[in-house]
Amino acid sequence: MPQINADRLLSDLRYLRSIGAVDNGVVRPAFSEPDMTARNWLKSCYQDAGLDAQIDGLGNVLGRSSNAGPALLIGSHSDTQPTGGWLDGALGVIYGLEVARALGEDSETRHLAVDAVSLQDEESRFYGCMGSRSLCGAFTADMEADAVDKDGVRLADALEAAGLAGQPRLRLDTDRYVGFLEAHIEQGPHLEEDGMTIGVVTSIVGLGGRRFVFKGQQNHAGTTMMAIRKDAATALYALAHAINERFPEVAGPRSVWTMGRVVVEPGAAAIVPGYAELELQYRDQSTDVLDRFEAIVDELVADINGRGGATVTASPSRVRISPAHMDQNFRRHIGAAAEANVPGKWTEMPSGAFHDAGIIADIMPCGMVFIPSIGGVSHDFAEDSHDQDIVRGCQVLADAAALILSE
Amino acid sequence: MPQINADRLLSDLRYLRSIGAVDNGVVRPAFSEPDMTARNWLKSCYQDAGLDAQIDGLGNVLGRSSNAGPALLIGSHSDTQPTGGWLDGALGVIYGLEVARALGEDSETRHLAVDAVSLQDEESRFYGCMGSRSLCGAFTADMEADAVDKDGVRLADALEAAGLAGQPRLRLDTDRYVGFLEAHIEQGPHLEEDGMTIGVVTSIVGLGGRRFVFKGQQNHAGTTMMAIRKDAATALYALAHAINERFPEVAGPRSVWTMGRVVVEPGAAAIVPGYAELELQYRDQSTDVLDRFEAIVDELVADINGRGGATVTASPSRVRISPAHMDQNFRRHIGAAAEANVPGKWTEMPSGAFHDAGIIADIMPCGMVFIPSIGGVSHDFAEDSHDQDIVRGCQVLADAAALILSE
Repeated sequence: MPQINADRLLSDLRYLRSIGAVDNGVVRPAFSEPDMTARNWLKSCYQDAGLDAQIDGLGNVLGRSSNAGPALLIGSHSDTQPTGGWLDGALGVIYGLEVARALGEDSETRHLAVDAVSLQDEESRFYGCMGSRSLCGAFTADMEADAVDKDGVRLADALEAAGLAGQPRLRLDTDRYVGFLEAHIEQGPHLEEDGMTIGVVTSIVGLGGRRFVFKGQQNHAGTTMMAIRKDAATALYALAHAINERFPEVAGPRSVWTMGRVVVEPGAAAIVPGYAELELQYRDQSTDVLDRFEAIVDELVADINGRGGATVTASPSRVRISPAHMDQNFRRHIGAAAEANVPGKWTEMPSGAFHDAGIIADIMPCGMVFIPSIGGVSHDFAEDSHDQDIVRGCQVLADAAALILSE
Repeated sequence: MPQINADRLLSDLRYLRSIGAVDNGVVRPAFSEPDMTARNWLKSCYQDAGLDAQIDGLGNVLGRSSNAGPALLIGSHSDTQPTGGWLDGALGVIYGLEVARALGEDSETRHLAVDAVSLQDEESRFYGCMGSRSLCGAFTADMEADAVDKDGVRLADALEAAGLAGQPRLRLDTDRYVGFLEAHIEQGPHLEEDGMTIGVVTSIVGLGGRRFVFKGQQNHAGTTMMAIRKDAATALYALAHAINERFPEVAGPRSVWTMGRVVVEPGAAAIVPGYAELELQYRDQSTDVLDRFEAIVDELVADINGRGGATVTASPSRVRISPAHMDQNFRRHIGAAAEANVPGKWTEMPSGAFHDAGIIADIMPCGMVFIPSIGGVSHDFAEDSHDQDIVRGCQVLADAAALILSE
């Protein structure tokens, strides 16, 4: 079996960490200067590994093996959250590079075709998983026309600034590929808590969202009697609390929901708020559970609107993403590779976080490998994993790739 | 009895409205350029009315009658909310000027001493009722040292920019004054709804506030299971909703409470919030009710902290202001003046909004006159009152002043 080079792997990961480094974290959002620097460096790494590399018109970096297919595509994303950790995405990208190198250096596997990829904007600066959507033909002209970041920058202007405007965009050739493998840090506590080294992902949870807009009547907080108020914040607190009380009735064991974005205007202690916004996101492996959450939301919204205070409207805050199931055959090979490397220390598990594999699974078989996150922390400068786990995860991925391609 | 000049009154009110005018409203926050322009104009008006006028080191404009006391101080504030209405404060300031002129023009009242005043920063750019506090000796060096506006501007720098740094500050001479009269728009709907023209204020409600800080653990919204979350926003929604459910149990008929300022961080749909803030303000005429609200808050905070999620701390968001009672004798004279001008169309009522008279009542008798607000709207560009009500209110105030000073 091919042997990965642990020093080379860790060295490349640390070099990538240095591009956009802030404290212990990384600030490398899609199309930023550090992001494009990283993508150009990755292109040169792919070339050094003997791959035919290019950066497409949305910033995806693809390194194609000169071997005939069937090929495996391996990678993840190198863009980060606005204040991101150093491994989220980056780990899977460097794994793809290292697996391509390791298989190319082994006489028994050098005929196999591994293409490496760094996808663009998984972290939703403009549109979540934009790069993988585009490679799958699922990033529409409408999505592109409306894409604006939280500071009001238009995608078209960001592409222009990054020198990508008008460059050709790639599509994945489903005839070439047997499928896509993505490795990632778990971003949760389960592997660490259970003493496991490898997670073989069974499915990626689906998610939906609702954006609530509350409209009331702004007024003086001293002279406006409670009985006649139309307080937008009061309606928001009532709805948010009711969601937290009611969702457990229909939730699955790993259902999660979050109301992390709130706006109350004008936002002064002595003014009855006339306007408010709330965003709800919910995730589960089961489409049924997502449906039941939405039914409860509809019921609670009608209840609030029947009270005579501020009114609320609910609209989808995002396109519903269906749960994505990983390929059974890939799961079997990844499990075999894990058992060979860390016997008894691996487990099958769903992914609570979304990943590019959830998009690519629509057009080809996908598999995912998780390694433990220290303390379960992610999307934070403190995100980290142990070197030993990083190295083992890459070896498992290399072995799994060899098993899949040798089949 | 003295006769006010309706044309002069309305003309001066409209001129003051033009200083800092934006749409139908006025933007004239304390120490802004329009605010200082207005104060210099008022000083010249006081001088034209025969008063000895000066602007003190905090921007208060005081016009003193040359008549011997006992004197009545009459006025309000000419600073506005960041997006204020044209009558809030300005009405009472121009009333003070007009009453001084009207009494000075009448042979029967020209020997009476009316001093006119425009107080500074009632609207809390730096510190609510700063001007009246300073005139009463209740604006301490500590309050001043900490005073910073919402944009981070220090009071000391604003004073410097306004040319007031180092200028002498006035104190009210309690030996000179029999008391203080303030007229104001009601800023609520009661007079209009009840078909009344004049409100004689019985008391100004007291108010208190609590600032809640919620500390949880920021985390990934997909991978962090509900059971182990410490979601700062969840705790905020629960507390805010419980306050709205519990306060009615102990509230008085005119109690009000508002939670108009909310911060949830980092404020993203896909991140479990690790930090949140909420501000609560509550008002009532009764100290007992304020005490009972605070007891409920303490109980609810302890309950949230016993749940094992995010924790919350509560601290006073402001110094508790006790309810301020208007002088019985002043109320009797204002009532008599109202009955003479608008028989049967006046009422006694508490003030739900706070006013400078609530500060000055600590050192001398105070009385307040309200006129109707159209639609009860205030702290908004749409704030307005009918000319007829404006004119009648000023005549009632002039008559009341003559009655009080002739006693």
